[in-house]
Amino acid sequence: MTVDPAAAALADSAFLRACRREAVPHTPVWFMRQAGRSLPEYRRVRDGVPMLAACRTPDLVAEITMQPVRRYGVDAAILFSDIVVPLKAIGVDLDIKAGVGPVVARPIRSAAQLDQLRELEPDDVGFIVEAIGLLTAQLGATPLIGFAGAPFTLASYLVEGGPSRNHEHTKALMYGAPDVWDELMRRLAAMQATWLAIQVSAGASAVQLFDSWVGALPADDYARYVMPHSAAVLRAVGEHAASLGRAVPRIHFGVGTGELLSLMGEAGADVVGVDFRVPLDEAARRVGPSRALQGNLDPAVLFAPWDVVAARTRAALAAGRAAPGHVFNLGHGVIPETDPEVLTRVVELVHEESAAAQG
Amino acid sequence: MTVDPAAAALADSAFLRACRREAVPHTPVWFMRQAGRSLPEYRRVRDGVPMLAACRTPDLVAEITMQPVRRYGVDAAILFSDIVVPLKAIGVDLDIKAGVGPVVARPIRSAAQLDQLRELEPDDVGFIVEAIGLLTAQLGATPLIGFAGAPFTLASYLVEGGPSRNHEHTKALMYGAPDVWDELMRRLAAMQATWLAIQVSAGASAVQLFDSWVGALPADDYARYVMPHSAAVLRAVGEHAASLGRAVPRIHFGVGTGELLSLMGEAGADVVGVDFRVPLDEAARRVGPSRALQGNLDPAVLFAPWDVVAARTRAALAAGRAAPGHVFNLGHGVIPETDPEVLTRVVELVHEESAAAQG
Repeated sequence: MTVDPAAAALADSAFLRACRREAVPHTPVWFMRQAGRSLPEYRRVRDGVPMLAACRTPDLVAEITMQPVRRYGVDAAILFSDIVVPLKAIGVDLDIKAGVGPVVARPIRSAAQLDQLRELEPDDVGFIVEAIGLLTAQLGATPLIGFAGAPFTLASYLVEGGPSRNHEHTKALMYGAPDVWDELMRRLAAMQATWLAIQVSAGASAVQLFDSWVGALPADDYARYVMPHSAAVLRAVGEHAASLGRAVPRIHFGVGTGELLSLMGEAGADVVGVDFRVPLDEAARRVGPSRALQGNLDPAVLFAPWDVVAARTRAALAAGRAAPGHVFNLGHGVIPETDPEVLTRVVELVHEESAAAQG
Repeated sequence: MTVDPAAAALADSAFLRACRREAVPHTPVWFMRQAGRSLPEYRRVRDGVPMLAACRTPDLVAEITMQPVRRYGVDAAILFSDIVVPLKAIGVDLDIKAGVGPVVARPIRSAAQLDQLRELEPDDVGFIVEAIGLLTAQLGATPLIGFAGAPFTLASYLVEGGPSRNHEHTKALMYGAPDVWDELMRRLAAMQATWLAIQVSAGASAVQLFDSWVGALPADDYARYVMPHSAAVLRAVGEHAASLGRAVPRIHFGVGTGELLSLMGEAGADVVGVDFRVPLDEAARRVGPSRALQGNLDPAVLFAPWDVVAARTRAALAAGRAAPGHVFNLGHGVIPETDPEVLTRVVELVHEESAAAQG
């Protein structure tokens, strides 16, 4: 067996060690939406380039993914993408409207409309393989996290036709036409399993399954209508990684999921992402000892004076010690108006404080 | 002591009995935002009338408040208003923009900007006294619920300058300038105490304090920065009612408050409103035996076929039996596109089912 020193350094990175609940030299940190509008260098390269075009251009994906790694020295990169990218890739008629979000031309509210969802083929998303190739060459021992939306959140966009406050058409379909719902979710789960498998094959070291909207559901409905499909995605990714002789940690995150944390872990996550509403020590009680946690500094706190940011960063680190592994992150994505300098200081503080605590 | 039969019938209404955790002939039901855009008769009378103008016109307030009582036979009326009405009444420069919500001309982010918040005087809101007079004459034994926004939610509008997803300026002020925050919240609490006292004096039989956005806070921050001020409002209303020789139940509601339910009860609510994310039996465990619950059919469920609506209505009724008193409601406001016929059937079903269960 040959030993590739670069691969060994990557496998031994603080981020992957924390995901595996192993001892770490310092608490690893990255930020959801670290690559994005808060960065001037991002706004420069995106100038005049529509979102979906950017997500499909390997050079741009690689450049944007690298920007926060260079600037902040975060412990992981996350693939720059959007959750609707695989939907676009199979030909669903949708666009991302600035200030609105994804808008779907033909919302799916009946079995007949499911014909928009064919299987995802590797040839549909060659751009992502190319982008990941560019990235792994640059990232060295810094892990790349693959990216996918969870079936429920994708379903909500498809059924509502865009972002929704109440998810009323989604819930009407889920509760009122469970067979159609089930078929919709099965197709989306298969698509996302393929989408993540392609990313893993190309070199992603971990994956995050984002279920942004799932906090709109009570736990019973989550368990019945959503969890089996999220679990199918997570299981498939795990099996795919195993077939390559690799272990690829699976992070699972949603917003407003206090009632769901335990179930989201049971769905097959190695790491459960926690929003800022539940302290990490309480989250650790809900999730249990067999999964690491990720989170959970409130991104709104970054708008307060530094002493507040520092105190709350320390508090999240302290609460995170109750978890069997802790990846420091925000409790939601970086808000576009955030001052990047503050994030730089948060990374430094997390590294210093946690290294001192380990030592 | 003279006995007023109308007053006795009102005091003995199912709604007020349930709020007091007394036995009821049937579970009372009303719907948050029952008076509003879902009703064709509402859209007719609002045609061409801006929201804030409507809220300040006694005839219109009375007519709109009565519409769902006539149509649905709900067990309580809720005063048609908007949470920013008292702010407008003291001269804060704001408007309600269709499709957006309240927009504040000069957001409050420093001590100097607090000068926009003078005390509320009864003369500022004579229209509401007149409206309540018209209403109590028509309502007879049907209770009228007074209406106010809680200090945190008002503060969020004032600090952000409008509706906000992340409340970043609000939290920056709260965490970064706690003295300014405290003074802002004290002024708002005083204003809302007066606003509700005026409604109670005019004839409101109960009040609901809406903290729509408070689910954006973890419990520790709620307890420290918000709860004392909400408690001040609730306490003042209770004392005011007692000074009139009356008992006026106080309902306290927010969205996404699974982590806060117990504290929101301790803030001084007689009835804790529960959104649809936490089943009522679980909410009863969190809130304890000394408070009634209100809720919590998901308003999105009303878009599903009737058998689903009926099953979930029955489930909410059944779970509500775990509470020492239950006022049936939605877990959030009526969605504007809701079919009013479905709400008619929900009222009938709640009354029939619960009367059978009591009998």
